Amino acid sequence: MQKTKGVYQVNGENRDIDYKFVRGLEIYRTGKAFEDAGHEVYTIEKEEGVEIIGKKGRTLTINYRIDDVSLAHFDALLLPGGFSPDLLREDDRFVEFTKAFMDDKKTVFAICHGQQLLISAKSLAGREATGYKSIIVDLENAGAKFRDEEIVVCQNQLVTSRTPADMLAFNRVSLNLLGK
Amino acid sequence: MQKTKGVYQVNGENRDIDYKFVRGLEIYRTGKAFEDAGHEVYTIEKEEGVEIIGKKGRTLTINYRIDDVSLAHFDALLLPGGFSPDLLREDDRFVEFTKAFMDDKKTVFAICHGQQLLISAKSLAGREATGYKSIIVDLENAGAKFRDEEIVVCQNQLVTSRTPADMLAFNRVSLNLLGK
Repeated sequence: MQKTKGVYQVNGENRDIDYKFVRGLEIYRTGKAFEDAGHEVYTIEKEEGVEIIGKKGRTLTINYRIDDVSLAHFDALLLPGGFSPDLLREDDRFVEFTKAFMDDKKTVFAICHGQQLLISAKSLAGREATGYKSIIVDLENAGAKFRDEEIVVCQNQLVTSRTPADMLAFNRVSLNLLGK
Repeated sequence: MQKTKGVYQVNGENRDIDYKFVRGLEIYRTGKAFEDAGHEVYTIEKEEGVEIIGKKGRTLTINYRIDDVSLAHFDALLLPGGFSPDLLREDDRFVEFTKAFMDDKKTVFAICHGQQLLISAKSLAGREATGYKSIIVDLENAGAKFRDEEIVVCQNQLVTSRTPADMLAFNRVSLNLLGK
């Protein structure tokens, strides 16, 4: 079963920051796990074609610009952590794109700080979720039912984890949800 | 009138990040404005003596470790922005220190993302505040009355601004509040 999926990313252009703001592990390991299972994985950012160089020299090329994608193109959305989500949610387009997946009950995976995009999309009221320690207060204030567990699956649609330490469980459960 | 004041900071040790996470401008310009007005300015972090090197080569040395300070040592607290506040609020000691200032109605200045520490301290319910665009949703969810203004003064005790672009007003109003 082939699946396509958007992976949020951030580049450093015009921001005076760099790729260190993205949790490379969450992109590479999770992305690779999905590809190994036969899914198609794409990255989305403000501009397509931009190459992001990770802290350890790994590179990642942005496949699509946010203006060119729509909900219909993808089956699932992955929101990796780091400081990328906080930078992306400054831009209403990324918040709206996240909200579209949640409103349509399409599969969404979020880890660490990725859930900040769900908070900005106002999609967490009444939903069970976990997340990185520093944003627990924000998750609870957003109406989420916070659970301090490595993996939380809500309504068979939303999968959340706390940190990269949870990533094996995150990948395993996420892949199960996609039906492999 | 001499005043002392704690400035939150973050260093990169054991975090695989670096000083770029701190909004240097907010530290240096605001700190200098306060010193020029005759106030004593101190920095607080996990360890004292650590030297932080800013993006443009400016350095800042941490004066006190968080375990060695208490509310009684200071008249006011400055919470600069960047990603520093989100890193600091992972550590309950910084949240408790922030909460102590707010509970005691001591003067607190926060700019950009600095308000994330106030959210974690659960000190914003019913308070008027502004902040950086990406955290507006978190401020509102925390019960703050958000105002999209360059400077918001609440109950003559809490001063907040949105971005470094508001800094001149932030410094001017903050200094007025301290009585010069």
